[in-house]
Amino acid sequence: MPENLLKGKVGIITGALDENSIAWKTALKAHEQGAKFVLTNAPIAMRMGAINELAQECGTIVIPADATSLEDIEKLYTEAKEYLGGNFDFLLHSIGMSPNIRKGRSYGDLNYDWANKSYDVSAISFHKMMQISEKMDVMNEWGSIMGLSYIAAQRVYPFYTDMADAKALLESIARGYGYRYGKLKKVRVNTISQSPTKTTAGTGIGGFDTFYNFADKMSPLGNASAEACADYIITMFSDFTRYVTMQNLFHDGGYSTTGISEELMEGLTGE
Amino acid sequence: MPENLLKGKVGIITGALDENSIAWKTALKAHEQGAKFVLTNAPIAMRMGAINELAQECGTIVIPADATSLEDIEKLYTEAKEYLGGNFDFLLHSIGMSPNIRKGRSYGDLNYDWANKSYDVSAISFHKMMQISEKMDVMNEWGSIMGLSYIAAQRVYPFYTDMADAKALLESIARGYGYRYGKLKKVRVNTISQSPTKTTAGTGIGGFDTFYNFADKMSPLGNASAEACADYIITMFSDFTRYVTMQNLFHDGGYSTTGISEELMEGLTGE
Amino acid sequence: MPENLLKGKVGIITGALDENSIAWKTALKAHEQGAKFVLTNAPIAMRMGAINELAQECGTIVIPADATSLEDIEKLYTEAKEYLGGNFDFLLHSIGMSPNIRKGRSYGDLNYDWANKSYDVSAISFHKMMQISEKMDVMNEWGSIMGLSYIAAQRVYPFYTDMADAKALLESIARGYGYRYGKLKKVRVNTISQSPTKTTAGTGIGGFDTFYNFADKMSPLGNASAEACADYIITMFSDFTRYVTMQNLFHDGGYSTTGISEELMEGLTGE
Amino acid sequence: MPENLLKGKVGIITGALDENSIAWKTALKAHEQGAKFVLTNAPIAMRMGAINELAQECGTIVIPADATSLEDIEKLYTEAKEYLGGNFDFLLHSIGMSPNIRKGRSYGDLNYDWANKSYDVSAISFHKMMQISEKMDVMNEWGSIMGLSYIAAQRVYPFYTDMADAKALLESIARGYGYRYGKLKKVRVNTISQSPTKTTAGTGIGGFDTFYNFADKMSPLGNASAEACADYIITMFSDFTRYVTMQNLFHDGGYSTTGISEELMEGLTGE
Repeated sequence: MPENLLKGKVGIITGALDENSIAWKTALKAHEQGAKFVLTNAPIAMRMGAINELAQECGTIVIPADATSLEDIEKLYTEAKEYLGGNFDFLLHSIGMSPNIRKGRSYGDLNYDWANKSYDVSAISFHKMMQISEKMDVMNEWGSIMGLSYIAAQRVYPFYTDMADAKALLESIARGYGYRYGKLKKVRVNTISQSPTKTTAGTGIGGFDTFYNFADKMSPLGNASAEACADYIITMFSDFTRYVTMQNLFHDGGYSTTGISEELMEGLTGE
Repeated sequence: MPENLLKGKVGIITGALDENSIAWKTALKAHEQGAKFVLTNAPIAMRMGAINELAQECGTIVIPADATSLEDIEKLYTEAKEYLGGNFDFLLHSIGMSPNIRKGRSYGDLNYDWANKSYDVSAISFHKMMQISEKMDVMNEWGSIMGLSYIAAQRVYPFYTDMADAKALLESIARGYGYRYGKLKKVRVNTISQSPTKTTAGTGIGGFDTFYNFADKMSPLGNASAEACADYIITMFSDFTRYVTMQNLFHDGGYSTTGISEELMEGLTGE
Repeated sequence: MPENLLKGKVGIITGALDENSIAWKTALKAHEQGAKFVLTNAPIAMRMGAINELAQECGTIVIPADATSLEDIEKLYTEAKEYLGGNFDFLLHSIGMSPNIRKGRSYGDLNYDWANKSYDVSAISFHKMMQISEKMDVMNEWGSIMGLSYIAAQRVYPFYTDMADAKALLESIARGYGYRYGKLKKVRVNTISQSPTKTTAGTGIGGFDTFYNFADKMSPLGNASAEACADYIITMFSDFTRYVTMQNLFHDGGYSTTGISEELMEGLTGE
Repeated sequence: MPENLLKGKVGIITGALDENSIAWKTALKAHEQGAKFVLTNAPIAMRMGAINELAQECGTIVIPADATSLEDIEKLYTEAKEYLGGNFDFLLHSIGMSPNIRKGRSYGDLNYDWANKSYDVSAISFHKMMQISEKMDVMNEWGSIMGLSYIAAQRVYPFYTDMADAKALLESIARGYGYRYGKLKKVRVNTISQSPTKTTAGTGIGGFDTFYNFADKMSPLGNASAEACADYIITMFSDFTRYVTMQNLFHDGGYSTTGISEELMEGLTGE
């Protein structure tokens, strides 16, 4: 395996819930490639045993923080900077949650307070993390900031309801802040639009398995795994991708540009 | 001029602030083409003298309603249905406002309460109007619902700050509800992404004139006017476009697909 | 029905093969809306009986022309101008053919001479018709030129092989010439990306029926018919859409922005 | 610097004309990262002295081949396989040329024989290289094939004329063959859409300098250099990006998603 892709790089990884999480895999790979980082998650979402184990494996600490709280983010940056001994080169936003989905509300029956919660947790928190990082001046030049998105930002998946809108908002924020941060400090901001992934979050969505299989058959390479996504994120944190910014990058085995696959058509014959 | 493109059609037009508004022009054209409709605007945004004059010219009434209030929307639909004598064939959402822009906050200094206000007024209100229309079952089959967007949903215009994110949200809502309403009642939902327009709202944005001229030089046909936009909206409300849905339609004189124009390059020579 | 949407407008309609053709339906609708036009088709593709009948119904003539031949196009314009008594307001390009598809060659076994034929007939002919129209100065100001495309220009449909590439080329040509013609004469150029349609051309493609049903289930409004497409083309030729240019307009019942439909998911359960 | 990103990987690099070429920089970086490869270029385009020097520096050979000739491609693969001792993991297509641009023909005055030459050299050759590689079965599983594109495939740059159409064709071919090769051998196919670059090919286009400066001011990070592009290509050839396929990847410092920059607006004030 190549080595030291992230040697000397320092950062923050959010959203490592359990070993199925993309953020979890990213932490392991980043560690393997020589990065130093802290882990963080919302107190309410943390499974203390699990994430502490990951921290131990990566030789780091966990700093609990609610990414919708400006105070928590400030505290996170202050403590992370102290622990890591300097400013940050990378930041992974891997946070999303919809009360409307959890409680089975359809898109024609949204609870708007919950929708605001979906936007705040899943998208606006990304802006907050960047705005505060700018105000505290904690990003290094040529740093890299990533968010995780889904193709529901472009096309409708009925079961994804207000999370689709949250992802559209997230991608827009990546562009808007990417412009700003590029000008200010050469920091790039991108989102990865990942295949449906068997994370704990993903499988909580109704009809997930059916759709997972559909996407797998549609994609020439099959669905991209959480581990493959972590690999891709590593390249985006490395110095090899310094001029990629304000993009939404599909990491999906070809799903997004496949109209129909032969495998799916065979399943349809006879109908 | 062709006639009767909207003969027998009944609808609701929001956002006619003054004679520069796209909604204002749309009302005049819809009336000319045989439609019946009511006008509505937020009490706080209404210029009573002006909109009443428009109502008179179109032989209709004004029903004040705050499109972020579920109660106001219900009241609007109830009164409109009574006045118009039946359900609606078309609905124009032409509502947008950003306190952050008004108060000159940059994208790195957003007030998040204000950002939520921007999203609520400019985007979520579109969802609210559709969700309540579905619950009250006030749309006719093959109806047409339109929102007004801007290319800032795809590309960054630094002065547009959180309105860009609001427009991305609006377009996502158009897709999400368009899927749902298509299935339910053959109702189509689209957004028009319009040239920068010298409306009262548009010109309130800093740097507007400079950018207006830039876009005008970039566009092979020049910027599209509010009046031309109203023409386009009429076709989208007519029965000639029944199968166009969940689209964001650029009405911009070619701006969105022009990389650079000869006129702009001439201006740049010598730099 | 509305009337006179194309009153006083004069144009050319290519590709009316038989009564299933989009061009055929467009001719009937254009006639109904007050347009005057000539019909044309390649001598090799013409079914003389059928197209003459259409011409009679529309009170016009047929001028045979091979759209890949510069000479034929010149002759077409000269004769059409003479017959119609002046320059043209609209032009419909509805021409496509792939020898590789006809002869069942897969995308990994293309015959490159045939591929060049596909590009020439299906895409480059569009450029030729525009370049010659400019050289002969036969378009009126604010005219409208349309081509017919398919979403295979953006996503892969394995059975569509080199026609996908031809459609990508066609859409690029629409943008490129649209810029030029907009500057020169305010002429707009667009493509419509239409649902799979049961035309004689469409049904010649292997697996068409299976895919037609798939697309129909995917689209919230169902597949758009040839007749609905003709309606949409009429609006694009009318004066109501003067500032729409260099666009690829999806006319597909919502297919292009639907990721998956509930109807399709039901069919997949159990797999 | 990280090392061994391409350790054990074997491939072919086309288009290294001189030290300004993206392909040239890619060869140097690939060598640095442990790859083995052969260089190739069209006999007519080769500057023997230069490319032989590069070959020496990379410890490899040059195999002349015209990428539009099926025979030449076969010969290239046969000889490369023999020299490298096995099948290929990566392939860089970096070939483009337009006689119409060279001879100053505008988009309204294309010579169609030359346009066909543009398409053949700049786009169809990409298909030929893949089709023959499939027929000869010379690609390893999980291999990576890249082409170089430009945003003119999406937006009009008047000076780019038929090369824009060639790039649209190239990107379509990447999608079409990416689907096929993904299914067959897990090979991914992508294009990189690169900033305007001061290569010998780029600077041959009229108005290049003016446009280069415009793009540089528009891009938050400035134009991406040929060297940065080579870095990005290395990641796409590495095992860290295995599930990215059928994509067009913008490597442009944020240009493609920037509507206007403050720097450009300043230049425009006063106009």
